[in-house]
Amino acid sequence: MAVSNIRYGENVTKEVGMDLQNLGMKNVCVMTDKNLAQLPPVRAVLNSLIRNKINFSVYDNVRVEPTDKSFMDAIEFARKGKFDAYVAVGGGSVMDTCKAANLYASSPESDLLDFVNAPIGKGKPVTVPLNPLIAVPTTSGTGSETTGIAIFDYEELNAKTGIASRAIKPTLGLIDPLHTLHMPERVIANSGFDVLCHSLESYTALPYHMRSPCPTNPIERPTYQGSNPISDVWAKHALRIVAKYLKRAVKNPDDREARFSMHLASSFAGIGFGNAGVHLCHGMSYPISGLVKTYRAKDYNVEHPIVPHGLSVVLTSPAVFSFTASMCPERHLEAAEILGADIRTAKIKDAGLVLADTLRKFLFDLNVDDGLSAVGYTTADIPALVKGTLPQERVTKLSPRSHSEDELSCLFEASMKLY
Amino acid sequence: MAVSNIRYGENVTKEVGMDLQNLGMKNVCVMTDKNLAQLPPVRAVLNSLIRNKINFSVYDNVRVEPTDKSFMDAIEFARKGKFDAYVAVGGGSVMDTCKAANLYASSPESDLLDFVNAPIGKGKPVTVPLNPLIAVPTTSGTGSETTGIAIFDYEELNAKTGIASRAIKPTLGLIDPLHTLHMPERVIANSGFDVLCHSLESYTALPYHMRSPCPTNPIERPTYQGSNPISDVWAKHALRIVAKYLKRAVKNPDDREARFSMHLASSFAGIGFGNAGVHLCHGMSYPISGLVKTYRAKDYNVEHPIVPHGLSVVLTSPAVFSFTASMCPERHLEAAEILGADIRTAKIKDAGLVLADTLRKFLFDLNVDDGLSAVGYTTADIPALVKGTLPQERVTKLSPRSHSEDELSCLFEASMKLY
Repeated sequence: MAVSNIRYGENVTKEVGMDLQNLGMKNVCVMTDKNLAQLPPVRAVLNSLIRNKINFSVYDNVRVEPTDKSFMDAIEFARKGKFDAYVAVGGGSVMDTCKAANLYASSPESDLLDFVNAPIGKGKPVTVPLNPLIAVPTTSGTGSETTGIAIFDYEELNAKTGIASRAIKPTLGLIDPLHTLHMPERVIANSGFDVLCHSLESYTALPYHMRSPCPTNPIERPTYQGSNPISDVWAKHALRIVAKYLKRAVKNPDDREARFSMHLASSFAGIGFGNAGVHLCHGMSYPISGLVKTYRAKDYNVEHPIVPHGLSVVLTSPAVFSFTASMCPERHLEAAEILGADIRTAKIKDAGLVLADTLRKFLFDLNVDDGLSAVGYTTADIPALVKGTLPQERVTKLSPRSHSEDELSCLFEASMKLY
Repeated sequence: MAVSNIRYGENVTKEVGMDLQNLGMKNVCVMTDKNLAQLPPVRAVLNSLIRNKINFSVYDNVRVEPTDKSFMDAIEFARKGKFDAYVAVGGGSVMDTCKAANLYASSPESDLLDFVNAPIGKGKPVTVPLNPLIAVPTTSGTGSETTGIAIFDYEELNAKTGIASRAIKPTLGLIDPLHTLHMPERVIANSGFDVLCHSLESYTALPYHMRSPCPTNPIERPTYQGSNPISDVWAKHALRIVAKYLKRAVKNPDDREARFSMHLASSFAGIGFGNAGVHLCHGMSYPISGLVKTYRAKDYNVEHPIVPHGLSVVLTSPAVFSFTASMCPERHLEAAEILGADIRTAKIKDAGLVLADTLRKFLFDLNVDDGLSAVGYTTADIPALVKGTLPQERVTKLSPRSHSEDELSCLFEASMKLY
């Protein structure tokens, strides 16, 4: 169980200037994206910095669903700025970009691929000290403020990959629920699906004592340790909040209780999966977003086609959990029950089907597109989707059930239509 | 939510040498008590240090229920040894003593009272950097491996007090459930009551947004923040484990599932109360143990009279929760339900009585002494017990219900007999 330091409360964002002053920081980089740059969360951060007389530069060029190129642009900015601290204000894209900027500015001689997960990158361990990074999440999905993960789209391979190291975990997450009030309907839905899958995948991930290889020295343990009694607490708690509040948060932007609860659930699930890991939904999602053709998700104000991360993750969830259930059926049934299924007469051998049906109903109620076909894929794309999944070993190897390429094909095939 | 770094698993103790080597440590102090010095947990630590060629000195003079004098003895040892790291192997007494030794060896000019909580001590903030401390708990109660708290008996005042600072929180807790197998019956019972009260008190503590004064600068926030949505998760989860496993763990030393679960529950409750705080049961417990006359608890191999901490905390719990219930009756009822009460027909106004009755039955089933009278107190002692509670403001001010001296007297009076 690695550490995550978060502070929750309305208006905690206003404290960021004092936090930086307490840390003795004098030259701060504020990272965000162009949409957010004009919105209250960024204004609250800048006002706090001004009030506390802290010099800062704003980088608002973060790409929503970042790429290696957009990472490099932020890294160059950070390297030139010689900042002593960072504040990331945004969703997962902003926080992940800021983690990368901090890492590579602290290690100016390193190439991007040096710290990227093997086999795509070299997967070198991070040994340099990083500067403080305070994360202020404005979506309710990624949990990136609690994790040592930074994901980007490696354009050459048309697939997402990332950096995973406890060293890049933010120093502090400021969880200010007021920031959720500006989120459009589909953004809250899709980011909520990310929380849903973080919870379900980390709860059903390979147990920590069955993971291999088992390094003899604790320092060699991966960031993702497999499901364990500590991450289980967070996974189930976050799942209960999703079950209770996600529909309300999506359907009514004025339902503060629901939106505030989802904001915390995002961090909770982050602490869980940031230690346990995720598996097939996430592993398969990276090519689904990476290979996007023309699909443009509603409510995302960006200039490029996009299958938002949370949507790309959840579309395969019914197929994935049907497939994995045989390895830990009790956990799959328990998850279905938390999500509202009546499991009193369910048979243990049907656990996968029960959870899959529960998820389909949940997604249907939330107007989710009808499967991969609805976001532009046909069966002809399956080989490319499988090929993009294979390098995602860091997560797919945490699947409780091992899988062949043919089985991955079947999972994509079964995800073409949901209803 | 401050951070706690724990690692759980059978035999994780064996990794301590590698952890210290990874940290570059060369001269390590191992702290324990005389009973434990001969037992497997300490042997496992020493073997690991030898295997990893780390120089160490053993201090086995920790007093069970430490005092200012026993703290000072350990501090002198630490100051002379010029250690670069510490390993504490034991229960709360050992871990707390080791935290103090690390703190005052790192601040050699400081007097003991400098960092002790006001009003007994000066309550100075800790600004010196401490050395790494790895905690290996061998009881299942204190949660001290996750907290920034060190408690001792200040003999001049006949009352317990302590040091509370995030700075003294252990670097890492190694939660090795195998260590619970050697615990005698009453030790597992009494340490389990500590978990029970950590959970109940932190769940019912004054909510974080109602605590005052509310410092404008986050650095001035106290270690104990009041109940909050994060500590609530830990409190309830730990309480569920206590409800399910404590009786089994006490009654059958071979019930590994129960003993292992209680070991984790102790850490979970620690993360909860270490952030939220405890209140009246703990505040009132300090004079109950501090003023002990001749009572010698079964299964404690010590040379002095002793009311073990967990017992001193739980004896007032029926009276305390009857008193506090009116401020958050739903939480009191919920706790009673988790502990096995049928609350379907319970009235909200009876929440305190329902929880108190549930606790009395729980304690009776576990052969707990019948109240303060059974550990040697009479009504004539009440003024002294109240006087010893008054300086425990750090915790008592987190009670959801404010209280006069007369009300404290009534709580002690009501705790003389339980059944």
